[in-house]
Amino acid sequence: MDLLEAIATTRAIRRYRPDPVSEEDLATILYAATRAPTGSNRQPFRFLVLRDGPYAVKAKALLKEGGRRMWSGKRTEEGYDAPPSDDSPRARMDRTMHHLIDTFERIPVVVLPCLIRYRPPHPGEGGSIYPACQNLLLAARGIGLGGVITNFQAFVEPELRDLLRIPEQVAISATIPIGHPAGRHGPVRRRPLAELVYDDVWEGEAEWVG
Amino acid sequence: MDLLEAIATTRAIRRYRPDPVSEEDLATILYAATRAPTGSNRQPFRFLVLRDGPYAVKAKALLKEGGRRMWSGKRTEEGYDAPPSDDSPRARMDRTMHHLIDTFERIPVVVLPCLIRYRPPHPGEGGSIYPACQNLLLAARGIGLGGVITNFQAFVEPELRDLLRIPEQVAISATIPIGHPAGRHGPVRRRPLAELVYDDVWEGEAEWVG
Repeated sequence: MDLLEAIATTRAIRRYRPDPVSEEDLATILYAATRAPTGSNRQPFRFLVLRDGPYAVKAKALLKEGGRRMWSGKRTEEGYDAPPSDDSPRARMDRTMHHLIDTFERIPVVVLPCLIRYRPPHPGEGGSIYPACQNLLLAARGIGLGGVITNFQAFVEPELRDLLRIPEQVAISATIPIGHPAGRHGPVRRRPLAELVYDDVWEGEAEWVG
Repeated sequence: MDLLEAIATTRAIRRYRPDPVSEEDLATILYAATRAPTGSNRQPFRFLVLRDGPYAVKAKALLKEGGRRMWSGKRTEEGYDAPPSDDSPRARMDRTMHHLIDTFERIPVVVLPCLIRYRPPHPGEGGSIYPACQNLLLAARGIGLGGVITNFQAFVEPELRDLLRIPEQVAISATIPIGHPAGRHGPVRRRPLAELVYDDVWEGEAEWVG
């Protein structure tokens, strides 16, 4: 698949077909993830893959609860709790999130990207883990899979860390479900480029973005 | 260019030919950057592009000083200061970093990826800016350019923020020089996949990574 096309059409995929993900496909997307850059090439990232093993089954149930807590707070605070008849983007997102959470145990693969810290937590540390998450999602898209970066782990972190024996100095940076998309990839919805790019100085107009 | 090949061969590029980067190419890589996912699709990212405008010239000089400070600390603390005759990876990195810093004002483009915060600084916030940085680097590789994620801004942040009028609630998440590579892209150096991927539980062996 063409690189620029893949970048432009990798949607967040939150609904999956029940088909399993082959180990070969899994290895392909994890290989892609680990090609990402990290500070000083330290490669502090580790990818914990949850499928249907004994720990994974329990971890998925915990992450489902994490998703419930996350979304129940967010939907009321940020106005996603529109009536079910509503067809606005927010109401559709609410239904999709409920679907994702309700079916969480049946998602073929959940990847926990982790970061082994060598210094205290810092906003810049994400530069050594989130590029790898993006590689993972792009590679998934390239071979017919899809996924989405969520924050479900943050709402059940102590229990999850305990269950999966993740050491204290390791950050669990995201929860990424992966599967065969029930819907389609396609162009993503973003603001016009001229609103997101500045030339020379903050808020400087970049006329050349076209 | 093929997606998976691009992912596997996007090296950190720190030496550039003097050729300018066309505005069309710049628009292409920034479009790619802004296709990345962000939390709740808030798109809190802004990309400040430094070329040869009046602010850019001053900002590049500041960032060069930031690079000097960063590397002078790191090379002694982390043992990159081997004798110049040494041909070890660390000695070569030392020479490359000196080259990058010494020639910083002549780099055609420097991108500052910025994050408009809506909550206090947090290690997870990088999930809304570093995927975009990776898209930028991959797209650059796809059209014959190259770059590298550095942290130079962190060492001159107050002055840089003041010069470029970057508001207080905005994080400057990286300093990414971009240009036509003097060397080549190619396979990246990473640990074996089996050391980076765990199955089912922390340190669980993933036999299927092959």
